[in-house]
Amino acid sequence: MRLAVVGGIAAGTSAAAKAKRVSKSSEIAIFEAGRFVSVGACGMPYRLSGDIKDPMKLVVRTKEDFEKSGIKVFLGYRVVDIDISKGLLEAVGPEGRINYQFDKLILATGATARKLGVPNEDLEGIFNLKSLEDLLSIENFMAQNEVRDIVVVGSGFIGLEVIDAFVKRGFNVTSVDIVTSVPPNFDEDVVEIVPSLLDSHGVRRIWGVSVIEFLGDGKVKGCRLSNGEELKADMVIVSVGFRPNVELAQKIGLELSVNNSIRVNEYMETSIEGVYACGDCTHSYSAVTGEPIYLPLGSLANRHGRVAGTNAVAGNRVKMPKIAGSSVFKLFNLGFARTGFVEKELKARNIDYDKVLIKARDKAHYYPTAGDIIVKLMWEKSTGRLLGGEIVGPVEAVKRIDVIGAVICLGGTVEDLARVDMAYSPPFSPVWDPVTVAANQALRD
Amino acid sequence: MRLAVVGGIAAGTSAAAKAKRVSKSSEIAIFEAGRFVSVGACGMPYRLSGDIKDPMKLVVRTKEDFEKSGIKVFLGYRVVDIDISKGLLEAVGPEGRINYQFDKLILATGATARKLGVPNEDLEGIFNLKSLEDLLSIENFMAQNEVRDIVVVGSGFIGLEVIDAFVKRGFNVTSVDIVTSVPPNFDEDVVEIVPSLLDSHGVRRIWGVSVIEFLGDGKVKGCRLSNGEELKADMVIVSVGFRPNVELAQKIGLELSVNNSIRVNEYMETSIEGVYACGDCTHSYSAVTGEPIYLPLGSLANRHGRVAGTNAVAGNRVKMPKIAGSSVFKLFNLGFARTGFVEKELKARNIDYDKVLIKARDKAHYYPTAGDIIVKLMWEKSTGRLLGGEIVGPVEAVKRIDVIGAVICLGGTVEDLARVDMAYSPPFSPVWDPVTVAANQALRD
Repeated sequence: MRLAVVGGIAAGTSAAAKAKRVSKSSEIAIFEAGRFVSVGACGMPYRLSGDIKDPMKLVVRTKEDFEKSGIKVFLGYRVVDIDISKGLLEAVGPEGRINYQFDKLILATGATARKLGVPNEDLEGIFNLKSLEDLLSIENFMAQNEVRDIVVVGSGFIGLEVIDAFVKRGFNVTSVDIVTSVPPNFDEDVVEIVPSLLDSHGVRRIWGVSVIEFLGDGKVKGCRLSNGEELKADMVIVSVGFRPNVELAQKIGLELSVNNSIRVNEYMETSIEGVYACGDCTHSYSAVTGEPIYLPLGSLANRHGRVAGTNAVAGNRVKMPKIAGSSVFKLFNLGFARTGFVEKELKARNIDYDKVLIKARDKAHYYPTAGDIIVKLMWEKSTGRLLGGEIVGPVEAVKRIDVIGAVICLGGTVEDLARVDMAYSPPFSPVWDPVTVAANQALRD
Repeated sequence: MRLAVVGGIAAGTSAAAKAKRVSKSSEIAIFEAGRFVSVGACGMPYRLSGDIKDPMKLVVRTKEDFEKSGIKVFLGYRVVDIDISKGLLEAVGPEGRINYQFDKLILATGATARKLGVPNEDLEGIFNLKSLEDLLSIENFMAQNEVRDIVVVGSGFIGLEVIDAFVKRGFNVTSVDIVTSVPPNFDEDVVEIVPSLLDSHGVRRIWGVSVIEFLGDGKVKGCRLSNGEELKADMVIVSVGFRPNVELAQKIGLELSVNNSIRVNEYMETSIEGVYACGDCTHSYSAVTGEPIYLPLGSLANRHGRVAGTNAVAGNRVKMPKIAGSSVFKLFNLGFARTGFVEKELKARNIDYDKVLIKARDKAHYYPTAGDIIVKLMWEKSTGRLLGGEIVGPVEAVKRIDVIGAVICLGGTVEDLARVDMAYSPPFSPVWDPVTVAANQALRD
């Protein structure tokens, strides 16, 4: 059995490693077009902030590590063609063109950072932050240029993490976004604090406008906004989402699904038998509605990979569970977490929901490090089934989102959530945990 | 409708406040024998540590607060007799003897700290830490005496919190316990780190011995141990558990249950109709086995109180949910959390369980504040049903015990737990949350 894995960042390496553990006798090869394999890309903002001393710490396992466990890694090899009927792929890399014969195929081709599509976006000093190569380019640029003013376009969780990082290092940071409530995948009433949080850290906000062109000559010098303003910038980070890399998938005729990601079933198998997909190039299924949802998250990529890896070598044995879609990030001294669907996503789906938003303290009121926390819950009106949750509060306190996520994954109701006797001690929570307070209020109890 | 509530610390005040909200027209009276009503007793160690500047912060609501919301508080009144058939109670307090006519009765008589039962335990300078009065006595003693050497007898969570507090304030602290694995309600393999943790904070440990007598003349000077050693002590805190206060309950003929606590059904109603009990004087029911379990925790007392309060004034309308029994405490830089039954409790019940213990990091390996974390899971061998969990690690990281507790409360399996897509970002967890790692390992996946 020969298994070819196309892409070796998170999902691909996870798939390959799992496949090897499940079937030691299989021959497994990873083709990774970039310079690095097995990258913890979510850590990159913490390298920009200076928290991580050596960027190579973000490489979880090296090519040599994989080869020691019997997995071949073709590093720097881009797969340019695949013939499914012959089980043959063609890749181009440092030592030329190679062909590889496979019985099973896993596509872990990832996603590409979206561009703004405005003039001069190719000026030096304008970066995305998706790959380790991006990170090294940014570091290289910053070492060779005098950078003081940084513009971050987009304020999803990566944009905000990057803002946090550059503020920590003392740069002048401006946040530009076309939306006016940030981050855009949270409900407005939950993230009302973000503007003052950014203000208090000296971040200039220009929201509700778009970048219409970049300015500069070779190197970026600034950008022009839709409100007419010209903004000085020594460097720009564009962080406005991802699109799945599906060129190869389309070439071999795979069906696509939500957000143009590769369609998979619950076994992570594509529309062609024996061909699997995992990670940012494909989708998950929602535990709330069962629908396919596109969430390019590192945690899901790794889960996908294990399922695809197992099934590719052992037959369709394990299912990818439906997901709550929980995610979390840190901005300065606050954490932001969400799970399931937030209110605006429920509205867009015409789901008949009810909601509650409570403000509380994350620890006992007399405990010195207690801070404000917001918990919002959404549930199905007719059944009480939990549909989503959002938490904003002191950094680690928001990880209790996973309790809400667990109840969603198990198909529970807001009453089930209220029943959970959360652990209490003054350094951890008030006697009524904020999650319980929200659930009780949902029950009007 | 007249409701009498005997006891006004946590459960009693919670019951009274809830009853008033449910039935505004009811006349509700709280009888509290002590000097304070509505005390957040779990905060007392954080007053001893100096974290809380004013001990009165531990009073959540005052007598005046209650009276403003229409609840009478008889402060300093001890209920000495109850005639159920006549609906009459007799209490003795600052202004003498009073009688109170009631339709419904709630007993929230709490628990008393256990004594060691050794000679000279009544010497000045030997304290329990159960009530706010205890705390003020300790503070008063420390203000009037030169205290340098403190012996803490018992090392359950309160004993350890007290040790943490006194170490923080620079005292010489010795921990004495009859057991050799601490805290005793955790499995030994989970808390192996505690000895070195105490050692590194300069706490002397004398475990596996008991105190056979206290030494001193009026004031405590030390104690003699079962190993023959004499230990110097300027002050002693005895923290060796609680026994429910059931004198009144027995007087009126209520049945008792586990640990001699007042027997209640799922409505928190005792063996006599119309008489309810809540808090440390009564028990809960386990979500794992359905059995009555005695857990004198502040979080449960408040839950009990709301149920008893509602049902007393509105008929048996709400049920006290079965509990996972989750609890948590902090010792120096580590948190300790448990839920369900730990291994030794499952053994004692002859339950056919399986288990896993994993060691991981609580955050991404490259994140600067990442620390070691242990997660242990127990599940039913035949069904996979989750039975219990223990977590030890960086303080706030252990609050993820609630995810395990939630799955237990919902009757889920270890596979259900593995399926929960936990929120990930480097400052919060590794890409595979330690809880998921443990659950995956349980499934040998």
